[in-house]
Amino acid sequence: ERPSAIFEHGDGAISRGDYRHFMLKEIHEQSQVIANTLEGRLGDQHVFTRILGAEADDLLDRVRNIQIIACGTSYHAGMVARYWLEKLAGIPTQVEVASEYRYREVVVPDGTLFVTLSQSGETADTLAALRHASQKGGYLASLAICNVPGSSLVRESDLTLMTQAGPEIGVASTKAFTTQLVALLLLTLALRHARQGDDEVQARLVTALRELPRLITRGLALDSAIETMSAAFAEKHHSLFLGRGTMFPIALEGALKLKEISYIHAEAYPAGELKHGPLALVDSDMPVIAVAPNDELLEKLKSNLQEVRARGGELFVFADEHVAINESEGVHVLRMPAVDDVIAPILYTLPLQLLSYHVAVLKGTDVDQPRNLAKSVTVE
Amino acid sequence: ERPSAIFEHGDGAISRGDYRHFMLKEIHEQSQVIANTLEGRLGDQHVFTRILGAEADDLLDRVRNIQIIACGTSYHAGMVARYWLEKLAGIPTQVEVASEYRYREVVVPDGTLFVTLSQSGETADTLAALRHASQKGGYLASLAICNVPGSSLVRESDLTLMTQAGPEIGVASTKAFTTQLVALLLLTLALRHARQGDDEVQARLVTALRELPRLITRGLALDSAIETMSAAFAEKHHSLFLGRGTMFPIALEGALKLKEISYIHAEAYPAGELKHGPLALVDSDMPVIAVAPNDELLEKLKSNLQEVRARGGELFVFADEHVAINESEGVHVLRMPAVDDVIAPILYTLPLQLLSYHVAVLKGTDVDQPRNLAKSVTVE
Repeated sequence: ERPSAIFEHGDGAISRGDYRHFMLKEIHEQSQVIANTLEGRLGDQHVFTRILGAEADDLLDRVRNIQIIACGTSYHAGMVARYWLEKLAGIPTQVEVASEYRYREVVVPDGTLFVTLSQSGETADTLAALRHASQKGGYLASLAICNVPGSSLVRESDLTLMTQAGPEIGVASTKAFTTQLVALLLLTLALRHARQGDDEVQARLVTALRELPRLITRGLALDSAIETMSAAFAEKHHSLFLGRGTMFPIALEGALKLKEISYIHAEAYPAGELKHGPLALVDSDMPVIAVAPNDELLEKLKSNLQEVRARGGELFVFADEHVAINESEGVHVLRMPAVDDVIAPILYTLPLQLLSYHVAVLKGTDVDQPRNLAKSVTVE
Repeated sequence: ERPSAIFEHGDGAISRGDYRHFMLKEIHEQSQVIANTLEGRLGDQHVFTRILGAEADDLLDRVRNIQIIACGTSYHAGMVARYWLEKLAGIPTQVEVASEYRYREVVVPDGTLFVTLSQSGETADTLAALRHASQKGGYLASLAICNVPGSSLVRESDLTLMTQAGPEIGVASTKAFTTQLVALLLLTLALRHARQGDDEVQARLVTALRELPRLITRGLALDSAIETMSAAFAEKHHSLFLGRGTMFPIALEGALKLKEISYIHAEAYPAGELKHGPLALVDSDMPVIAVAPNDELLEKLKSNLQEVRARGGELFVFADEHVAINESEGVHVLRMPAVDDVIAPILYTLPLQLLSYHVAVLKGTDVDQPRNLAKSVTVE
């Protein structure tokens, strides 16, 4: 017997309402919870640096390096942030899985901000990594990006930046991930502002963030098209997810979702690595999913896709509505709303969440409580 | 028609002798080519810093950060080196896939040595990354670790450290990888020596490196035991490789070999990430391979292995001969010669190469020229 569909969480019962599963409900909440996470944090021209606390201004000036630590889905959010922090804030950034970081001898560059990511704030390895870093010393400060106020991670960090995802019941994380991305982009822009004040890029991205909840709603309207697409996966045992740049971690996250709830062996690669090995696996039994927004890497990705097609692999491309990729035999294209390249990873997460959801429903798995997995990994 | 078994390479024809495939020949050459790569580079107490050239001493003193760039198998060698460089030389190190690095805006810390790894020295993305870095400027110097003298990478780098693997014909890299690891450990120890002179750790590792060719011969003597083990994989479509620390990249490399030549969908994870998603995939159809030398992470890995076993996954553990892991129902243990923890990743590569080789032979694939792949990826 599974637990009933009503969960006690904090100050009351959580219902899944009219949704068949909590996961689907949580996917569709993303417009609202992203708006909540942005609430009070955007000025006209820039992100408020005070989002990190009253004394953060001085600290932000002194950040010279960032070390991000996380596990699972949160680790993928950290990987996206590395691209943002280096490109938009000019700060060298390393991202590492908590269970690896805490057991090796790490050299800490001067002025390193230690950032942990965890939905629950109780992830055992992430918490242990924070404690290890605090004991070792040498870091400028610790910052927790977390969804649960009062959690261990929040209590033990110098600074916190809360996501406002609300309770997440489905074991496979969805809205916690996209709100983490939003928080990480806010952090990036706050650091940029502390360094160089107002500028056009910041103003453009603040506008894009204001429009993001509406864009999310448009992205979620693709639900039924993705449900149709999902039929092609229900009988498959493998799939390959490809992306480049910030879309590589999104490909990783899409593959992880499919693994977690549909038990399909999905694996992600940076598209440029395809020729260095995984192309040997591609045949008609291995559908390939590519996330290809309209950015500078698109032409490169197209040539990778041709290789896949030439080897008989069936292709599913999530592409910008303005991009010149056409449907053809074995090439399926799902058009996404046009979006700023920087924001794209947040938007492109949605169709991959929906795809894994619909494939799992077709396969009849226990979507909200997949086998072998726990919601928060509070043991090592 | 495949090309015949005689290849022209440099100054003469290469024969596979009595070996059924070039790959098997190249696996068995590793004791000799590692000895060749060490030749003239080890003093009594330390690695000679002059291995990087007459003027390297001054340069080595000024290295404050290292950026390693590579593709495919070479990328895995770079990942091992990151652990070594941070632990043994105390130098912060980043490793990135060339096709990702060259297209993003990277912040270069002061005193960064830019290291490229490529067997052929003609890998398109790696070469383009070097040119991109040279144009951009800001690096202390560039160093190529390469197997082909006179290659583009060697000609265009400030410094070179040659591997002495000899011509590698099999598309799936074997001896080129282990000689890269040896070269990277020499680099690590040269940097350590430039910083702190002689010390006990360096002396211990110089001794261990001298003994390495003999240890490799002992490791290769496990060939027939691994051939027996390989029968369990021939009918499988999936497998999961687990490792922690320096063994995680070795797990990645083992999975890549199996993908490349047996077309089994093998994927590697740092063992601590298992609970964050991939455990959902584990059942009796997915054998799990763990590389578990006798190091500080073994107890942690053992608890991960129990989870796998509890879910019906069949386990294959490559473990130190002195480690207390016993064979039992569904748990197969292959005993490896005892080895210094630092050297272990080199030794533990061998059984994974042999496993993929024997599985491929059982499956009847074209071992030396797997489908879809080229030996050197000289296009982007």
